[in-house]
Amino acid sequence: MRATLIYGAGDVRVEEVPDAALREPTDALVRVLRACICGSDLWPYGSMEPAEQGARIGHEFVGIIEDVGAEVSGFKRGDFVVAPFVWSDGTCDFCSEGLPTSCRHGGLWGRDGVDGGQGEAVRVPQAQGTLVTLPVGEDDALLPSLLTLSDVFPTGHHCAATAGVSSRTSVTVIGDGAVGLCAVLAAKRLGAEQIILTGRHEQRTDLGREFGATDVIPERGEEGIERVRALTGGDGTHTVLECVGLEPAIETAFGVVRDGGVVSRVGAPQYADVPMDFGPFMRNITLTGGVAPARAYIEELMPDVLDGALQPGKVFDRVVGLEDVSDGYRAMAGREALKVIVEP
Amino acid sequence: MRATLIYGAGDVRVEEVPDAALREPTDALVRVLRACICGSDLWPYGSMEPAEQGARIGHEFVGIIEDVGAEVSGFKRGDFVVAPFVWSDGTCDFCSEGLPTSCRHGGLWGRDGVDGGQGEAVRVPQAQGTLVTLPVGEDDALLPSLLTLSDVFPTGHHCAATAGVSSRTSVTVIGDGAVGLCAVLAAKRLGAEQIILTGRHEQRTDLGREFGATDVIPERGEEGIERVRALTGGDGTHTVLECVGLEPAIETAFGVVRDGGVVSRVGAPQYADVPMDFGPFMRNITLTGGVAPARAYIEELMPDVLDGALQPGKVFDRVVGLEDVSDGYRAMAGREALKVIVEP
Repeated sequence: MRATLIYGAGDVRVEEVPDAALREPTDALVRVLRACICGSDLWPYGSMEPAEQGARIGHEFVGIIEDVGAEVSGFKRGDFVVAPFVWSDGTCDFCSEGLPTSCRHGGLWGRDGVDGGQGEAVRVPQAQGTLVTLPVGEDDALLPSLLTLSDVFPTGHHCAATAGVSSRTSVTVIGDGAVGLCAVLAAKRLGAEQIILTGRHEQRTDLGREFGATDVIPERGEEGIERVRALTGGDGTHTVLECVGLEPAIETAFGVVRDGGVVSRVGAPQYADVPMDFGPFMRNITLTGGVAPARAYIEELMPDVLDGALQPGKVFDRVVGLEDVSDGYRAMAGREALKVIVEP
Repeated sequence: MRATLIYGAGDVRVEEVPDAALREPTDALVRVLRACICGSDLWPYGSMEPAEQGARIGHEFVGIIEDVGAEVSGFKRGDFVVAPFVWSDGTCDFCSEGLPTSCRHGGLWGRDGVDGGQGEAVRVPQAQGTLVTLPVGEDDALLPSLLTLSDVFPTGHHCAATAGVSSRTSVTVIGDGAVGLCAVLAAKRLGAEQIILTGRHEQRTDLGREFGATDVIPERGEEGIERVRALTGGDGTHTVLECVGLEPAIETAFGVVRDGGVVSRVGAPQYADVPMDFGPFMRNITLTGGVAPARAYIEELMPDVLDGALQPGKVFDRVVGLEDVSDGYRAMAGREALKVIVEP
């Protein structure tokens, strides 16, 4: 079969790889209907050292079950399913507590003999814990929004949920990428009435407004902090959703959070330390968030997607065939595309 | 009147200062019955540059109201009261939200013309919001425990409460100082069943066991981390109460916290940054806590002190007269005394 491999910064190739096939009785075999490229795929795409051996990549996909192992129940050939970006058994204590990203028998796509998502098919380990059935036809117009349940929408939701966003909290969302925009959507869904989005890419911030942002702030650094403070009586917002992962973003987050407030981060941190010194201590600032346990949120978020109330799929603004996946990476890295669907 | 001033590291003096007196209609004048020395007083005692002009010090006291301003109601001459370690108006939005340490009209003792607590009397600004009546006689045997309501017990409670300690969470308490021991007591009060205390000062850890610690770990660093992990099936505890404020303590905290868990810190941070990089991100670790809004907790904690169910006053192991306050500092700095009462 054909699948995507990354060989180094800027070097993504589609190659022939061994066909995905069942190995364990807990596996399922899924033919990929749609995958997509994640902002986190751009980190290795931007900085990976050249390698002799390519690494499988991609961790977001929906597809059709082709086969299931003997120990998988509740799924059958032909089922339309979504896979979250971490696979997990669904039964261990961490999974039971809603933290499948720490599953005792889980792991990441594209590693240790597990297929990546950007390919024609995937062997899904711990299929019963990992997969969720999508109760619609596979050519449904909802497909892009259902695909976001794999990662980007639950990630935005995790950011808002761990921050404690509600109708009583004002919100700043840092970053107008697909995760930031999904965080806006999630904050709106949780009842937030004031949602300030920082970003300067007008097409994206326009979508942010459509998703629920009440204010858009293009300024960065100290100037951006002052703008948020001016919008909040000088105090900053109760919650700050940091959806970038770079040091200036986390610094801005601490600059715009209200005393007693929460900074939640879901941008994979490209920094080592966080400035949690005496200042944030005296202001009782909490730092939370982390990698989103997407699997734990899919059932909660799906109804709003199925009935069309929320359309997170609007973050996709380009579709490429599998053979053109490198064009998709180039477009996202150059900020020409917000988020790219890959159609095998 | 006589009061304590600090002139530099190791240099604490008792001197004649202007008598405390009402200035604003919102003030009360309180004769100090008992004050005490805080672990945080030891930071300037350990490192303050020598100064020409001494600075007033002390922020924990109980006393008797001598006079109240025209706008203070609910308090009268002769009332026995406790003052939290930050004064606050009790009416602003932050006070209403339970964060009087960020009060819009509040401040710290010993600064900007406000008396310190380690003296004969104190002018209490925003008295109606700040003070809490103690419904017992002033010579009551409960007096040491009631004095802890000023700071050390609410600080331990803040640590446990913001960490989300409950009957469902295991707990590690880092630090066997008075705050750490009060954090043990608070965790026990909130229902924790496994409370692991790190500390190597046997007299203190014995009190920790009396307060509710189920395990005591004298080892530090990697060895200490391994011990906590061994006690928790390799996972660490759901909550970690960091009651020291030094970098090794916060590093240990991240080493012993379970995936999805919470590190709460109430030790005034003597570090600039916190190691919240990719590791804690993937493990969904939350960092919370901060300066304790003691005033917000006093009514909640007082009943358990009044009925003798909890005896946080056991952290006091020495009493000095006001003229001997420098002996108290010396004893605490040298770890000869755990916590010292000052009796003017």
